[in-house]
Amino acid sequence: MSSNFGTLFRISTFGESHGGGVGVVIDGCPPLIEISAEEIQVELNRRKPGQSKITTPRNESDLCEIVSGVFEGKTLGTPIAILVRNKDARSSDYDEMAVKYRPSHADATYDAKYGIRNWQGGGRSSARETIGRVAAGAIAKKILNQVAGVEIIAYVKSIKNLEAIVDEHSVTLEQVESNMVRCPDAECAQKMIDLIDDIRREKDSLGGVVECVVRNVPKGLGEPVFDKLEADLAKAVMSLPATKGFEIGSGFQGTTLTGSQHNDEFYLDEQGNTRTKTNRSGGIQGGITNGENIVLRIAFKPTATIGKEQNTVSKEGEETTLAAKGRHDPCVLPRAVPMVEAMVALVLCDHLLRHHAQCNLIKN
Amino acid sequence: MSSNFGTLFRISTFGESHGGGVGVVIDGCPPLIEISAEEIQVELNRRKPGQSKITTPRNESDLCEIVSGVFEGKTLGTPIAILVRNKDARSSDYDEMAVKYRPSHADATYDAKYGIRNWQGGGRSSARETIGRVAAGAIAKKILNQVAGVEIIAYVKSIKNLEAIVDEHSVTLEQVESNMVRCPDAECAQKMIDLIDDIRREKDSLGGVVECVVRNVPKGLGEPVFDKLEADLAKAVMSLPATKGFEIGSGFQGTTLTGSQHNDEFYLDEQGNTRTKTNRSGGIQGGITNGENIVLRIAFKPTATIGKEQNTVSKEGEETTLAAKGRHDPCVLPRAVPMVEAMVALVLCDHLLRHHAQCNLIKN
Amino acid sequence: MSSNFGTLFRISTFGESHGGGVGVVIDGCPPLIEISAEEIQVELNRRKPGQSKITTPRNESDLCEIVSGVFEGKTLGTPIAILVRNKDARSSDYDEMAVKYRPSHADATYDAKYGIRNWQGGGRSSARETIGRVAAGAIAKKILNQVAGVEIIAYVKSIKNLEAIVDEHSVTLEQVESNMVRCPDAECAQKMIDLIDDIRREKDSLGGVVECVVRNVPKGLGEPVFDKLEADLAKAVMSLPATKGFEIGSGFQGTTLTGSQHNDEFYLDEQGNTRTKTNRSGGIQGGITNGENIVLRIAFKPTATIGKEQNTVSKEGEETTLAAKGRHDPCVLPRAVPMVEAMVALVLCDHLLRHHAQCNLIKN
Amino acid sequence: MSSNFGTLFRISTFGESHGGGVGVVIDGCPPLIEISAEEIQVELNRRKPGQSKITTPRNESDLCEIVSGVFEGKTLGTPIAILVRNKDARSSDYDEMAVKYRPSHADATYDAKYGIRNWQGGGRSSARETIGRVAAGAIAKKILNQVAGVEIIAYVKSIKNLEAIVDEHSVTLEQVESNMVRCPDAECAQKMIDLIDDIRREKDSLGGVVECVVRNVPKGLGEPVFDKLEADLAKAVMSLPATKGFEIGSGFQGTTLTGSQHNDEFYLDEQGNTRTKTNRSGGIQGGITNGENIVLRIAFKPTATIGKEQNTVSKEGEETTLAAKGRHDPCVLPRAVPMVEAMVALVLCDHLLRHHAQCNLIKN
Repeated sequence: MSSNFGTLFRISTFGESHGGGVGVVIDGCPPLIEISAEEIQVELNRRKPGQSKITTPRNESDLCEIVSGVFEGKTLGTPIAILVRNKDARSSDYDEMAVKYRPSHADATYDAKYGIRNWQGGGRSSARETIGRVAAGAIAKKILNQVAGVEIIAYVKSIKNLEAIVDEHSVTLEQVESNMVRCPDAECAQKMIDLIDDIRREKDSLGGVVECVVRNVPKGLGEPVFDKLEADLAKAVMSLPATKGFEIGSGFQGTTLTGSQHNDEFYLDEQGNTRTKTNRSGGIQGGITNGENIVLRIAFKPTATIGKEQNTVSKEGEETTLAAKGRHDPCVLPRAVPMVEAMVALVLCDHLLRHHAQCNLIKN
Repeated sequence: MSSNFGTLFRISTFGESHGGGVGVVIDGCPPLIEISAEEIQVELNRRKPGQSKITTPRNESDLCEIVSGVFEGKTLGTPIAILVRNKDARSSDYDEMAVKYRPSHADATYDAKYGIRNWQGGGRSSARETIGRVAAGAIAKKILNQVAGVEIIAYVKSIKNLEAIVDEHSVTLEQVESNMVRCPDAECAQKMIDLIDDIRREKDSLGGVVECVVRNVPKGLGEPVFDKLEADLAKAVMSLPATKGFEIGSGFQGTTLTGSQHNDEFYLDEQGNTRTKTNRSGGIQGGITNGENIVLRIAFKPTATIGKEQNTVSKEGEETTLAAKGRHDPCVLPRAVPMVEAMVALVLCDHLLRHHAQCNLIKN
Repeated sequence: MSSNFGTLFRISTFGESHGGGVGVVIDGCPPLIEISAEEIQVELNRRKPGQSKITTPRNESDLCEIVSGVFEGKTLGTPIAILVRNKDARSSDYDEMAVKYRPSHADATYDAKYGIRNWQGGGRSSARETIGRVAAGAIAKKILNQVAGVEIIAYVKSIKNLEAIVDEHSVTLEQVESNMVRCPDAECAQKMIDLIDDIRREKDSLGGVVECVVRNVPKGLGEPVFDKLEADLAKAVMSLPATKGFEIGSGFQGTTLTGSQHNDEFYLDEQGNTRTKTNRSGGIQGGITNGENIVLRIAFKPTATIGKEQNTVSKEGEETTLAAKGRHDPCVLPRAVPMVEAMVALVLCDHLLRHHAQCNLIKN
Repeated sequence: MSSNFGTLFRISTFGESHGGGVGVVIDGCPPLIEISAEEIQVELNRRKPGQSKITTPRNESDLCEIVSGVFEGKTLGTPIAILVRNKDARSSDYDEMAVKYRPSHADATYDAKYGIRNWQGGGRSSARETIGRVAAGAIAKKILNQVAGVEIIAYVKSIKNLEAIVDEHSVTLEQVESNMVRCPDAECAQKMIDLIDDIRREKDSLGGVVECVVRNVPKGLGEPVFDKLEADLAKAVMSLPATKGFEIGSGFQGTTLTGSQHNDEFYLDEQGNTRTKTNRSGGIQGGITNGENIVLRIAFKPTATIGKEQNTVSKEGEETTLAAKGRHDPCVLPRAVPMVEAMVALVLCDHLLRHHAQCNLIKN
């Protein structure tokens, strides 16, 4: 269904931008995982609005409450419900958007589908929905790290035509968090910040590419056919707002190589492990991890809601124009970084459990 | 699970390259749809090996049997099982690959995951698995066409650096099928054929991009959050063998535009319908169709199995080399075209039923 | 998964007896259904503790908050989250049960499964978990009634050896609600109340049977094989705490008849509809509704938690005795009535949507 | 969906009584399980028609073919497809039933739901559909036995008013298979056989109760809320044709006891294990196994299709009579025994994998 995700490590998000709040129910989490609201808050703070001059100034502390599923600091194995209340809602900003459809936004399609929508703050199509994903992702990350030392690091790879140089093998969370645009290439980061700041003043917006690397990946995660790991990863990140493209490993560039150029030849490392000399596969072969780094990229379009005047039509079916009020991100990329990490963590944690169920039952 | 796909129009594929056969069980199909083995065969023939000099010479007629679910030419509403027997298996070609892992293929990861694999013909990782998808897709296409006149047309957009010029609004199935590479740009098609024929002689392989357009799409298909239509389409096509990337609408190129350049402004057409002047959204906004054409692109890497000698390791953990025997496609793109159409049809048919269930119940 | 239920009309419950609260997320609800917290509260009040002298004296108002999914009094089609806070928790009552396992309760099995449990108030195994089911059931009932005039009425059929006489065709909600034991046979009801009151004083407990009738059932709901309607109903009610048996129509008694005695012969009623003279089928044939009343019965065992001293073992593995403190129902039946109605409503609403999706698509 | 069952060990059945055949696809099976068609055939032979004078004389050898998923005698971890062809179909027997609805059968409801049905042999509602379940159950049994020594034994407990005396602790498969009615109480069995033989000559039919015991059950299987083990078992067996009731442990009789009489007191056995003195819980507490024997009973109604003339209506809406031709079981119970075992095995195997995934991940 629309708001459920995962097979064994399964989440269900709820909530609109304005209203009682947003949150998530996580079902299938292993018991006895130590987790606190504070740990989850760290990830939510990376996602929250108002964290810098290049994000929306909406002022939400996004403080989370663990309503259920955790007892004396440990998971119970039963559903973990996490709730974040909406605070700084300014519905009046949306009065005009209640009747005029924002171009390239979800307003018109929600009305076409449901015959009703909560127009305040974009309702369910708001990026606030991702709070539940990021909170759940924090727990998934912890499990992945505890079980296998898995590291998931996403960062802004490009904004418009500015492309960063990043070494996927050595990039650190500290580098990513060292600047407000979350690009570990410091020099490029400053240019990106300036560019976003400029576009903000022009009441326009920018897009870009987020890259994500996963290190210390166990071999054998993923499934052969429909639930290939790259397929589930593609769905996961393409379900984030504003995404237009997905690549794993060599991606679209890989289509210009021949097989003999593209194939990742095998060799034995010093420990006798089967490794690949190159990693155009992006860590996945035949839908299943081979132990090399998973590398993926996601294209985010420029924010649809802009202050510039645009042609549009009204709910009542009249042509009109709209210069959107409200507080919007001139570029979603910096806040998309923790969202991407969360979605990747959710997929990997689910497949970790699935693999364990099917392939480790007999050995144990 | 790995081999199930869809929520309401749901398929389950089975079978390995060599062995009893391959097929599919389709559950949830509406009753009273007229369907015949002949209609399904038309699509299977577009997918089958040996259809031209640029595909694998393996000679399989891929004749399908409808085992259940159809009675007196109409669907019963109960599961439709379709079976295709394997005929022209030459397992001896694979003796070497039983012990040596093909670079960038699924051999090593299957062994890592399961501790066993059917090495004959690639087993479950063979493209023969897609027979079930294409057969099910034929039925999905028929339902989509019958209910809403939906047209799904995929074609080869590029091979290596050769890129075709195709008008998504006017391209026809006849144009696609008019040449063996399934590229509707006749001039470019010939260059592609020549290039593939050259690489085949070099025992190497090529990749490229398949583009797919869907016309006459009903408004309102898709869901707001995890099951956004673009997310489900991404998963669907990224679950095909050899895929490395996915784009919807403006894709990665769209990240270089500003919001005011990228947004699709609304207008009213002569019938008073809300339409968009441009279609960078690719027919989907907020996860839900807006009635414009759906346009997507998929990157296929060059075929991993090649006759050229490559470095690899053996199952027993020794470094060695492999020049693969067997009959393999020098380029999967021409046969990937019906596979892409099938996966897109399966997603849309499933969402058509889902939308009907939730949003048309009360109106009726 | 454990805490998800339904295919299209899908719920996910969360929460423990003591802690932040309990609730439900409902996904897949049709849009534009008018619903208010007050309407849901009516059902929750039938379930809440402290409503009479024969239920637990725990004093919870169980006031619900609709956190999301409803806008200006109507459903949005997106997830409806409903939250009820825990108020009157007396954890100290459970100090002894933290270390001593209650016989026939979930304490020991939770510890065996998870290695941890929230022992306060029974945690997740508490009947408070059913708050989310009852709240969701209120919405399901409304949809069923709006679409097809469906009526769902459950009542206490027996307590211990006291069995009520009830006419399934004419019994009304008013009759059920006219006494605190929810038995529409007034004479028998008083005997039941006296019996429960007696057993309460003895610090013991009682069980019984709830019967449920569904009237105005549309024909065609249910599926032929695994998701036969009676199978889904059985699962639904057997997932309620303290259930030990399920019957549809003739039930176990029907096994003593011959086929010619048991079969429901068909006839045409005055409107020319195909009807059955008898209803030993309980409204379902081959897994699918035939339009006659659905009639089912559920056995509830006597409450496990009792004040009488019993032999047991401690968490540390020592034999001991336990006379349970805390506030417990001497008989769960009166409060089980709205739970049964809710589970039946959830199953029927889900199948209504499923049937509509598959079998009404083409007609429309 | 209708024809899918299970979460991790997942099956999908297909096929009608007359037509190409019937079968099953099993997805999620652990790899490296040794399995042969011969082993599966043993179970199918217990289910097949024509095995004795008290079953239908339809002569089907029901020979199974493993089409995929097994390689060199071991499971691959990928889908296992099993096919049984229909041989001895006598469609002409059903000509009358093509237009006249059998009372208490699925004919009328299938027509009401789908507007079409395969009337030959009952189509999808035929007990031949259970071939796929029994085949899959054979594999599930093997896994359960291999991992934990689990034993599943079902038997006929009663036919009409004849009730057998069986000791659940000691009953053996050999005792069950020692007579054609599958009742381990030899004396009662003979009376049952005579009674069925009599009713067969009267062109009438009989029902009864199947009891099933599971021994050596691991602790901790099952889930706390909707997927309580008894709920999933109830659904599983109530999805078998002709079922009308389900009991676990004390069942309906348990409702006449008080809590102090009903509760299973704990004690420590000689090995220091927490055990219960009695087993009214039927091996499950709070939805989760406690390691005691699982004991359940299922009510099967008398076969609906009988040779005696009955009142009915035709598809065209006219009142008429029907004395059914065709070859039918005068009592389904003897052949229901392996079906019940299969469904119980499927549920337990699925929960074994689910439990392993969630609760054994961290320990390992």
